[in-house]
Amino acid sequence: MAGRELTSTRSPRVKAARRLAKRAFRRRERRFLAEGPQAVREALALDGVLTELFTTAEAEIRHQDLIAQAERSGVPTFRVSGEVMAELAQTVTPQGLLAVCAFVDVDLRAALEPQPRLVTVLAHVRDPGNAGTVLRTADAAGSDSVIFTDASVDPYNGKCVRASAGSLFHLPVVVGPRFDTLIPALKESGLTVLAADGAGKCSLDAALDKGTLSGPTAWVFGNEAWGLPDEILDAVDEVVRVPIYGGAESLNLATAAAVCLYASARAQRAGESS
Amino acid sequence: MAGRELTSTRSPRVKAARRLAKRAFRRRERRFLAEGPQAVREALALDGVLTELFTTAEAEIRHQDLIAQAERSGVPTFRVSGEVMAELAQTVTPQGLLAVCAFVDVDLRAALEPQPRLVTVLAHVRDPGNAGTVLRTADAAGSDSVIFTDASVDPYNGKCVRASAGSLFHLPVVVGPRFDTLIPALKESGLTVLAADGAGKCSLDAALDKGTLSGPTAWVFGNEAWGLPDEILDAVDEVVRVPIYGGAESLNLATAAAVCLYASARAQRAGESS
Repeated sequence: MAGRELTSTRSPRVKAARRLAKRAFRRRERRFLAEGPQAVREALALDGVLTELFTTAEAEIRHQDLIAQAERSGVPTFRVSGEVMAELAQTVTPQGLLAVCAFVDVDLRAALEPQPRLVTVLAHVRDPGNAGTVLRTADAAGSDSVIFTDASVDPYNGKCVRASAGSLFHLPVVVGPRFDTLIPALKESGLTVLAADGAGKCSLDAALDKGTLSGPTAWVFGNEAWGLPDEILDAVDEVVRVPIYGGAESLNLATAAAVCLYASARAQRAGESS
Repeated sequence: MAGRELTSTRSPRVKAARRLAKRAFRRRERRFLAEGPQAVREALALDGVLTELFTTAEAEIRHQDLIAQAERSGVPTFRVSGEVMAELAQTVTPQGLLAVCAFVDVDLRAALEPQPRLVTVLAHVRDPGNAGTVLRTADAAGSDSVIFTDASVDPYNGKCVRASAGSLFHLPVVVGPRFDTLIPALKESGLTVLAADGAGKCSLDAALDKGTLSGPTAWVFGNEAWGLPDEILDAVDEVVRVPIYGGAESLNLATAAAVCLYASARAQRAGESS
């Protein structure tokens, strides 16, 4: 069972964890909250990331293995009342397991050093649910890293962490580079930099046909509502649009990202086998 | 300006519209609610679909063209107070335009008669936001029709209508066929029926390589959490999985649907041009 019991929402440890719902406190302490068994399992797989674990009595029974693993790893665990969990969790129906984790992001240099083949950049993405979904999709499509520019949502936002479904812990994530230094760095690493934008002159099919997607590629995805600013569209190697074959005006961001990233994944693998 | 003014949430007309938030009333009257300028524009493009239009004074100024068009089409329009709009709208920040629309779905037979090349089937999809996103993606990818089986969410649910971003009005939508009669009907129409499922033996890449996706295809997408039941997996021509190249356990439903539908769209067009 969990080590200590905390039944008051005014416990200093509970209050300290609760504060991590706010970005300013996350930044200061370089820690964030991750809810649910999947996130706890993924965080435990990384050395020294999980720093505190809160559980309810019910969750302790349901997830004995995870809690035992946390305790073996020396993670302080605390049993909390339902009321305290409700205070800590950011979901309507908390899953009874809440982890305090150390930031997992890496330097841009560390992410680019191993000469990545596929990099995903979120520029001006503001909805944390969308950002988390793109992170999960990038992971699934075999992206080597995901970069959140300084104008994008915080990847440690609770909604983003949840929507990433564990992917935040799977691949190198870079937080906060400015766009004007990022693009040159991507190009210097041998990546072709493509922006996904509905107004792009080049369709994804044309990009596939001319082999643009077969080499190392960085995809830049923009804001949900207004896309990407001109200075980014001007700086990338090519602006690519996902073709719209029917009557829809546009695709949503996460959908467009899925189509682009999987097109790259397939084109790169086809190049390898031929 | 709008015809009559309604300032009471107890007005019979307001109450009649408000009831359409419930599926039982929608079914009985074969009418549904669609919010916002985009939905109103799309509904007006179809003959006899928009049957009543509610607007706020602010929206009347902002969308004069739409309201004039509705009036020219003989649609009864009503100016309502902010309070009444808040009662009618299902969103937190109503856009000030709310349409009562006649159901737009068509028979399965009508949808299959023109020998479709790409059909999207939602089986056991329960989240209306997901269903609407898949509908929008299917429209963008050039799907000829979208079929909601009897075990799926109601496409006229307000969240689904909103997430479809107008696509509900763009392409033939079929509501309610049972799966055991649907699959034979799809096959008889010359469609190869593919189920998307993470446990599929055939990867999407393999299906593309062997030409499975080049011909007329119906894609079946299942439940967000548990996928598709065995009787469906057994009945389709092939169960196809979207490959996971990275550490993610799975893709979300709308993402997987986007990857599958766009793979089909490209494969079918490549076949035509060669």
